[in-house]
Amino acid sequence: MDNNLKKEFKSIVGSRNYSDGEAERFCYSYDATRLQYRPDIVIFAENTEQVVRIAKLANENRIPLFPRGAGSGFSGGSLPVKGGVALCLTKMNRIKEIDVANLVATVEPGVVNADLRRAVEARGLFYPPDPASLEFSTIGGNVAECAGGPTCIKYGVTRSYILGLEVVLGTGDVIRPGGVLVKNVAGYDLVRLFCGSEGTLGIITEINLRLIPLPEGKTTIMAIFPSVEQAAKTVARTVQSRILPAALEFMDATCIMAVERYKKIGLPTDAGAVLIIEADGPARVLAAQRERIESLCRECGAISAASADDEKERENLWQARRAISSAVSSLAPRKVNEDVAVPPAQIPELLRRIDIVAKEMDLVIANFGHAGDGNIHVNILYDPDVQGMQKRAEDAAERVFDIALELNGTITGEHGVGITKADFLEKQIGRKQVELMRALKGVFDPNNIMNPGKIF
Amino acid sequence: MDNNLKKEFKSIVGSRNYSDGEAERFCYSYDATRLQYRPDIVIFAENTEQVVRIAKLANENRIPLFPRGAGSGFSGGSLPVKGGVALCLTKMNRIKEIDVANLVATVEPGVVNADLRRAVEARGLFYPPDPASLEFSTIGGNVAECAGGPTCIKYGVTRSYILGLEVVLGTGDVIRPGGVLVKNVAGYDLVRLFCGSEGTLGIITEINLRLIPLPEGKTTIMAIFPSVEQAAKTVARTVQSRILPAALEFMDATCIMAVERYKKIGLPTDAGAVLIIEADGPARVLAAQRERIESLCRECGAISAASADDEKERENLWQARRAISSAVSSLAPRKVNEDVAVPPAQIPELLRRIDIVAKEMDLVIANFGHAGDGNIHVNILYDPDVQGMQKRAEDAAERVFDIALELNGTITGEHGVGITKADFLEKQIGRKQVELMRALKGVFDPNNIMNPGKIF
Repeated sequence: MDNNLKKEFKSIVGSRNYSDGEAERFCYSYDATRLQYRPDIVIFAENTEQVVRIAKLANENRIPLFPRGAGSGFSGGSLPVKGGVALCLTKMNRIKEIDVANLVATVEPGVVNADLRRAVEARGLFYPPDPASLEFSTIGGNVAECAGGPTCIKYGVTRSYILGLEVVLGTGDVIRPGGVLVKNVAGYDLVRLFCGSEGTLGIITEINLRLIPLPEGKTTIMAIFPSVEQAAKTVARTVQSRILPAALEFMDATCIMAVERYKKIGLPTDAGAVLIIEADGPARVLAAQRERIESLCRECGAISAASADDEKERENLWQARRAISSAVSSLAPRKVNEDVAVPPAQIPELLRRIDIVAKEMDLVIANFGHAGDGNIHVNILYDPDVQGMQKRAEDAAERVFDIALELNGTITGEHGVGITKADFLEKQIGRKQVELMRALKGVFDPNNIMNPGKIF
Repeated sequence: MDNNLKKEFKSIVGSRNYSDGEAERFCYSYDATRLQYRPDIVIFAENTEQVVRIAKLANENRIPLFPRGAGSGFSGGSLPVKGGVALCLTKMNRIKEIDVANLVATVEPGVVNADLRRAVEARGLFYPPDPASLEFSTIGGNVAECAGGPTCIKYGVTRSYILGLEVVLGTGDVIRPGGVLVKNVAGYDLVRLFCGSEGTLGIITEINLRLIPLPEGKTTIMAIFPSVEQAAKTVARTVQSRILPAALEFMDATCIMAVERYKKIGLPTDAGAVLIIEADGPARVLAAQRERIESLCRECGAISAASADDEKERENLWQARRAISSAVSSLAPRKVNEDVAVPPAQIPELLRRIDIVAKEMDLVIANFGHAGDGNIHVNILYDPDVQGMQKRAEDAAERVFDIALELNGTITGEHGVGITKADFLEKQIGRKQVELMRALKGVFDPNNIMNPGKIF
């Protein structure tokens, strides 16, 4: 990028929000994939007006824009793969309104998920989507990736809570699809089209979110199983018993060991699998639900099934659950972290086949995730310094994708395609859909400056 | 359409599924708007293969295709406004699978909503979207219009239950966006883009639906109010009290009178307004919820608030509710039937301003609808034989749209734009969004043969 152009970007955001120094360019060159691509410049936008000017300048000069929240994505969605501008939205972090009378919150994209969650909970309301990154990931990033999380089994993904958006297109045009209404069918559903579009269609600058009443109470049960099969059977039985838990999380033996080493909370390191099952609702039904779930776990072979009703113990359990990804990372220098999903009844078959892949390829594969909706995080551990091991890990990941697709599943349940799964997208959705999606992108971003190199 | 082409269409579907006779062309020339446009031919497709051949033939010859379910739409979405082919999908009405283990149903587009509902209820499962037309409208039409209904306040609209689609594009290409998974972020969200696209992007030939466990019990409360204001206050208080009813329906005095005349169920014809409030959930919380709702109604001024726990009485109440639209139609030769939505707290203001419009324009306007989510059906009665009255009714409708938009609302909460609201779309979403939507249509349907003349 030439110096005149740099100066123009700087004049839009001011010098405190601009950097082309080595340190900043390094800091904003990566995300949770640990892959690295350096942007030419790093800028922070403070309002929509600035974003519009940035987009227009970038569009006129064909400079790629890489919008970015907390950079906690697992598919490389925010990486500046073609130089250009790392456009940080973390300073646009105001909760503009919590409208209790209409159950709607209006926020800027840089608001951290947990901050919003706490703000609405203080008003007796609930924003369900809960990616494991919730303490640092931003609502803008959550919308761009259509983030999931444990509560999706009952409450649905981010998409279900986005009522309206303000979006700055790659041309600098501002549109406001949707609004503050649950029901609104005036024209095509652009809101949902932007949700999960991974920053490739425009820059989200404001979000209207649907809130729901906060459940009266919660109960969280940890069930310990001798084997993965018994845990999987419990998942299937839960679904078939018409129990709709608020979360139904699974971790295998490797994850249990890793978490316990990372954060001592008393997990049995000799167990085959653990399920964390949460129920929520009116206090007067929770006790009955807890008993029903606990006895179902025992019927399916659980060694123990006990609830953490105490809020502190409950929070500990969830912190452990959210720490799995980091904990597993500490087992090996590197990991391939995938998030396939299959119909829940196929989980035993998925895990059985992943186990075969691990054995055949002499790799450790740690599995955990959202068993209730079939979304399993498959972590393939490797050491890049061991000859051929990275290649084996990558080949194993590809085999896992194939298995998921054979089982009527998806290559990505909640992480998005980004750059890490772009090569596999066509395998899942076919060439025609990829062509249509490319053409859709062209409608919103004719010069392909918005997060180029992603998804396709 | 020339005779050779007619013959070709006939050879695709067979003579029992083809007609160009006056009677059939007349039968398939209208929908619930009572507007009429005659197709050149009427054909029934029996499978996807036929739909593909129909689309290819139509595309090659630039013949417009008007897909059609039960024709129960209120915005003219299925009307063959440019001649061409009325493509009826009602014979593709198989429920292909109810997968209890994964909570997914797979259906053809012509399955009637209530038939699906009953089939899954027999398995202990629930398909929530419940348009008033549920006894005759089809799932394909429900998806195309993104149908709403009373339960949306708690369970969301049709969109929330569509996991995957098979769609035949205007080019004859077949795509299968989505699948059977709750979590799936592989590429742009084409599933949701098709949902609510009113048949303008392609022909839906198969649908994968998400099911949820059937609630244990239901209780339905009818509350009678001296005035609209008191009913509206009850709605606001319900939302603010963090009660999430399964339905919260409103009808004004004109609707009460019309329904009672049409179907005697003992509604008090001197009341100012009625609310029907339904709660569902575990049996052990229903009694408490019922008491809470009933006392809230009384606090807000209800003359009476009593529950219909008996299933027959409950069903009577709902049949009365679903009959409102037909009942109101019987009050005058014609009506303009709109379905604006506003944030729920704005309902009193919306109704107050509609009342002013009715008085100023010397018209009877009957209002009812889904108060819990702010979606009000505004029925403007008129007699086309009274000089100038139709014009007054249309002008009143336009004023109602303006009022809804001023209150941060929408011109259509669940009926769609179709032809009746096409002139007002730009007022709501702006020119840029309309341009983008037109361009999106071009991506899927380059020759504009799919339901042309709608939305834009």
